[in-house]
Order: sequence, then structure tokens, then C-alpha cells
Amino acid sequence: MAGQLIVQKYGGSSVANTACIENVAARIIKYVGKGNKVAVVVSAMGDTTDDLIAMAKKINPNPSEREMDMLMSTGEQISTALLAMAIHKKGCEAISFTGPQVGIITDTSHTKAKILKIKTNRLKKELDNGKIVIVAGFQGISTNDEITTLGRGGSDLSAVALAASLGAAICEIYTDVEGIFTADPRVVADARKIDYLTFDEMLELAARGAKMHTRAVEVAKKFNIPLHIRSAFSDKEGTIVMDKGERIEEAVVRGAALTEKEAKITLCNVPDEPGIAARVFTELAGSNINVDMIVQNVSHKNSTDLSFTVLKDDLSRALKISRKLAGRIGIKEVLADENIARVSIVGVGMKSHHGVAAKCFSALAKNKINIEMISTSEISISCVVKKELGKAALAALHKEFELQKK
Amino acid sequence: MAGQLIVQKYGGSSVANTACIENVAARIIKYVGKGNKVAVVVSAMGDTTDDLIAMAKKINPNPSEREMDMLMSTGEQISTALLAMAIHKKGCEAISFTGPQVGIITDTSHTKAKILKIKTNRLKKELDNGKIVIVAGFQGISTNDEITTLGRGGSDLSAVALAASLGAAICEIYTDVEGIFTADPRVVADARKIDYLTFDEMLELAARGAKMHTRAVEVAKKFNIPLHIRSAFSDKEGTIVMDKGERIEEAVVRGAALTEKEAKITLCNVPDEPGIAARVFTELAGSNINVDMIVQNVSHKNSTDLSFTVLKDDLSRALKISRKLAGRIGIKEVLADENIARVSIVGVGMKSHHGVAAKCFSALAKNKINIEMISTSEISISCVVKKELGKAALAALHKEFELQKK
Repeated sequence: MAGQLIVQKYGGSSVANTACIENVAARIIKYVGKGNKVAVVVSAMGDTTDDLIAMAKKINPNPSEREMDMLMSTGEQISTALLAMAIHKKGCEAISFTGPQVGIITDTSHTKAKILKIKTNRLKKELDNGKIVIVAGFQGISTNDEITTLGRGGSDLSAVALAASLGAAICEIYTDVEGIFTADPRVVADARKIDYLTFDEMLELAARGAKMHTRAVEVAKKFNIPLHIRSAFSDKEGTIVMDKGERIEEAVVRGAALTEKEAKITLCNVPDEPGIAARVFTELAGSNINVDMIVQNVSHKNSTDLSFTVLKDDLSRALKISRKLAGRIGIKEVLADENIARVSIVGVGMKSHHGVAAKCFSALAKNKINIEMISTSEISISCVVKKELGKAALAALHKEFELQKK
Repeated sequence: MAGQLIVQKYGGSSVANTACIENVAARIIKYVGKGNKVAVVVSAMGDTTDDLIAMAKKINPNPSEREMDMLMSTGEQISTALLAMAIHKKGCEAISFTGPQVGIITDTSHTKAKILKIKTNRLKKELDNGKIVIVAGFQGISTNDEITTLGRGGSDLSAVALAASLGAAICEIYTDVEGIFTADPRVVADARKIDYLTFDEMLELAARGAKMHTRAVEVAKKFNIPLHIRSAFSDKEGTIVMDKGERIEEAVVRGAALTEKEAKITLCNVPDEPGIAARVFTELAGSNINVDMIVQNVSHKNSTDLSFTVLKDDLSRALKISRKLAGRIGIKEVLADENIARVSIVGVGMKSHHGVAAKCFSALAKNKINIEMISTSEISISCVVKKELGKAALAALHKEFELQKK
């Protein structure tokens, strides 16, 4: 690749200490040496963000979200300055920017802000002057002039949004693994790195626990920015995510994923009237709670059960909102279960093949794994099982669909 | 004090850890409880700034000043957010701001920026809404939209400038000592806390090593903002610095100070022509090097020696500039001496009393301390001596002028 504009994102493990930062500097310079322009997005060093959060919680167990953003945004700023210094040391020109400084404008939802637009004039000027630009990931400035952060993993989003705004040829996401695998290699020993994925497949895998931020993939898809998810510690090609299907392997199921981060809420005996589900999910969305799987079965005796999953971090808030609403609309019982895992299989080929769902369910049955919830999309099937059976379920599906074979 | 607008500045030792931050929060709330409005300026926690500098130097021994500002400004931002959270925890309203966010506009001299103006509209709005406002010290935003820092001790300057802009009744500078002493109590055992000082006296003492930033005192004097320098760890009154002489004690000499931070440069056999000194100090000022004492004696054989002191941190740069210039204007030799200390006595009363200088020099002579350079102003006398004799010189002057007596 030469003569292109490339956006590279380096995660916390890639800049964990000064030696890592020097390695990253050398890698960036190699790209510039080939005639490319490079814009870099960096995360906070290693555990910096966790350390800041721990310090905050020690002072105030329930800190204001505005102040959390003020606090956490410092981590990325430190990385950008140190990386610029490391590049200078190697004789190249570089300049660092905070998110607010560069004009990453967001809405006003602290700790979970959405990017509205990116002002690129300053960045373009510096790139045209031959400088490597380094932008603090994960952060922006709200329409109220407040410092905001984009939520966990938000640096991926910063990178993709920057790539879209600058019209970059590709967005490289550097991480501590070699790419996206057919399943988590720590759980499934013969899991295989996937060379190419479509945006939709990546989106499903990201949502189901693969190492990538869903919102980042959505933006990449929307603006058709190819992603290259790869290791910061090797030169091996990683996983390329792009729109066109021509380079896509023809397997039906492309990957399997497991997540233990969700909890299940069930509203029991919901009156079977139009608009109830809408009210529930409107209230949750209004509180910035992302609901993932939603399952509602046929009603009997004019009432039905409505189940959905949310991130465990959001469970107590979601439960509070659900119970309040339940009282108002006559729902008798609201149950919560944190002891769940979700296994999923993903693949664009899936939609045109019959029997994938059946094969999936019978693989779990063969392994005596009971399914608690099922949800399907055109390119994925997800099953909620008891948490302790999650890993076995992932292994069973990986084997059933022969994902270890290329 | 009640019903006033007070600016309080807490230094790094006052916010060194989460427990310290909680103490500071309690102190601030006490003032608010008495009906005052409080704007707070904080430094970085404990050794944060030093740690950041160490990390930078590990990556690049000669880091860019712009990137140093980017890096160092994070320290104060962390303190502001944590302090806001601590105040929230105690049930009061508070909001934190970075220097750039609040509109502390500076010139473009990175690591030593000068404040040009402070936009107070946002701060005033929040104060009027009953909030405690917390501003990151030491930092601002340049007219080029770059993050700048104000140099070591710059948080004092931020606080005084903020007090001036907001029209505060007083600016309290919290530190780890009880106030300004007649001499450093670690060196002179019977040194005594001074209750009141004039701005001019404080200025001289600050310049001569007392725990206060000179530029901050200059701004306080210019805008006539009373300062109260006091301990963050006790409720005792500290030292009040103000314009009016009415409350000033009548002693001739008010305090003595010692600094070992300076080095001496001597240009030997400088041609005795008009304009040479101007060229030397114009070049040094252009490189943002502060020259302190300047001594030039009568010439003999159409040439003279010109000596001056600079901060040790600036010595290598100052020497480079001096040597370059020396070559151009025919100065034969440029000498440097880092092994010096400067002792000073300060007092507004001094100017109207005869014999103070003589008493000073004879006190040093009695103790067999040789004087290498002498410089006097209306309210101070400074002598440069060998570094190893500095403490003895301070003690001798403190005793001679009976500063231990009230």
C-alpha cells in the first residue's frame, strides 16, 4: 500500500508502556516511508482508564458522568503526546490533538456520547504539511462545549469516524490478537483466523463478543471504509472487513461467538395490547440503555412474556425502569437473570441455506445444553444458555459447522 | 468572611491523594456554608507532573515543548474532576473546567505561556447558579488553539489571574507550610511566620526563593488582589499580602531568603560600547530565558565584565546563546558557575533606613563569607556566595536583623 491516506488505531495494549509506544512509532514511520499519509488514533496506556475509574469510585461511588468524562479523557491525551515525542525522536514530524481540539463534535450524552461530526480542516492542513497526526481516541466535545467520551471501545469509533471524515483508503485497527477468529481461541483450541468478512458479518460478530466495537463497524459500513483488524506485535495480515462479497469465502457459517456480558430481564404476563413493547423499549432507550436480544412469544389468555437482554452494567438501571413501568401498566412480575451466556453463529451465506438453525439447535441438544432464548437475524442465530454451559455450547457449534477448516 | 467571592488555590501536596482531596472538599464546603461563592484552582496530584515528565524523557530526552504541554496539562485535569466528585459526595454542587475550556487565553510560548485574558462568562454563570467552580491550574489555550502551560508554579498565577478577572475579594493560596517565614525554617530554626507583607516585599521574597510564584504576586499587585498564603492542613491564619501599609509591622527588614536554583554567567572583557548589554539580554529574552541579577562594574581599559544569573534549568541554553553572541561581538571569554547561592534580605522599611547594606555585608564578613556579586533594589539586597556557604549566610542575616523577634 503506498501513496494513500491511512488511519491507524492503536488500542491500550499496543501503547501499554514506553517501549510499546516506541514500537508503534516505528510501525507508523514505516508506513510513512512508503509514501502514505497516516492519521493515528490512540487509546489510553494499558490500565490507565481502569486506574482512573478506581480512583474516582474511591472518592465517590456514584460519580457524575460529566466529571467521569473530564477524568477519563486525560488517559488518551497522555498517549498522544508520548507517541508524538517517540516519532520526533526517530526524526519524523508528528503532532498530537485532543478530541475537543480537533473538533470531534458529539451529542451531550456523557460517557456514551455519539459523534455528530468531525471538523477536519486542521488535520488536513497538518497532513498536507507532511505531518503524522495523532488524535486522542474515545473523546470529543459536545455541542455544549463539554468534554465527552464515547463509551468503552470508543477509540475504534473515533478511528473509523476519522477515516470516514478524511476519506481514508483504509482504517487499520491494531490490537493484541491477530484478527477475528472463528471463535475465541482461548475457548476453542482449533479456532482459525478469518481472512475476510463482510461488514454485516463483522457487525454480528462484534455484537456477539468479538474484539471490535459495534458502533465502529456500523460507521465503517455506512461510509464503506474497509477495516483491517490486526496485531500491533506482528506484521501478519489480520482480518479485512469490507463491503464486496467477491473475496468472501463461500462457507455458510463464518464464525461463532460467546458473550457473558449480558443479563436477561423478563416481564411476566404482559397485557397483550398494542404499544406495550414500544413503551418499554422507548423508556429504556431514553435512559441510554441498549437492549440487545428481544424475544416475545405468542400470547395465551391475553397476556404474554417479554424477555430481553441488556449489558450487566446496565442491569440495575434497566430493572428499576422496568419495574416502575410494570407497576403503571399492570405487569405482575419482573424477573432478572445474570447467570446467562449467549452463543451465536454468524455468516452471510446462512440466509440462503436451509437447515442451519436446525443443525445449530441439534448440536446443542446433542451436548445436553438447554436453550433458554432464541433470536435469529438474516445472518445470525443466537441462543441464550446457562452461563456455565456457554463455553461448551461455543465449542459444540464451532465443531458442528467445521469452522476450523478453511 | 461571608458573602464574598473567594478564589482558593490548592497545590499538589494539598491534593496528593484521594484522602487529601476529600479534606480539601470539606474545607471548600465550609466556606460556601458561610455564604461565600468559591472558585477553586487546583494543581496536579503530588508527583504527577514529575512522573509525566520522567515518562516523556524516557521516550525522548529532548521532547517538543508543545507535546510537553499536551502531556503535562492532564495532571491538573485529573485533580479537578476528582475534587468535583468529592464535593458532590458531600452533597454540594460543583463543576470542573480545564484551562482551555474556561477560556484562559495565553500567548504561544509553550511551557512558559503568559496569560492574555480570561473569559469569565461561563464561570460567572455557574457561580451565580450556586455552584463551586473548579478550574485546572497551570494551563490555558493559546491564540493558536494549542494547549499551553504557564511554567512551574503556574497554578498560583492561574488563581490570581482568575481572582482578578472575577473581581474576587481575596485569593487564598493553600500550601504545605503555614505561610511566609522570615527565613526557611528548615535552615533557620527560629524563623518566624510573617503575618502581613506588602506586595513589593512578597515579590522580592518570592523571587528570592520563598514559596510563591513571582508572576502571581505581580498580577496580584497589579490588580490589588489580597493574597492569603496558608496551610491546607490547619485552620491557622497564614501570611496576608496586601497593598496598604497600615497593618504592616514597622521592622526595617522583613524577611531573608536563600535560593540555590540559579547559576552565574560572566562575559569577560566586554567592549565598553553602548548597546552591548541590550543585545545580550534581548537575545536571551527572545529565547524565553529569565535573567535575574545583572551586575556590571566600572570599566577599565575600555572593557568590563558583565555577570548575570539565570535558572540552572536554563543555563545550557543561556550559555549557548551567550557564546554565540560573544563570538560575534568580540567577547573573549564566557564563564559559567553553577556552584552559587544567593541570600537576600527584603523589607519596605529598608529604603528609608541608612546602614542596612553595611550591616548586611559586615554580618557576612564576620562569618567569613565572601561575597561574589551584590545587587540592590529599593527594598532588597541580594548577595551571591559560594553554594556551600548559602545556609550559613542566611542564618547570619536572620540573626543580624533579629528577624526571630516580632
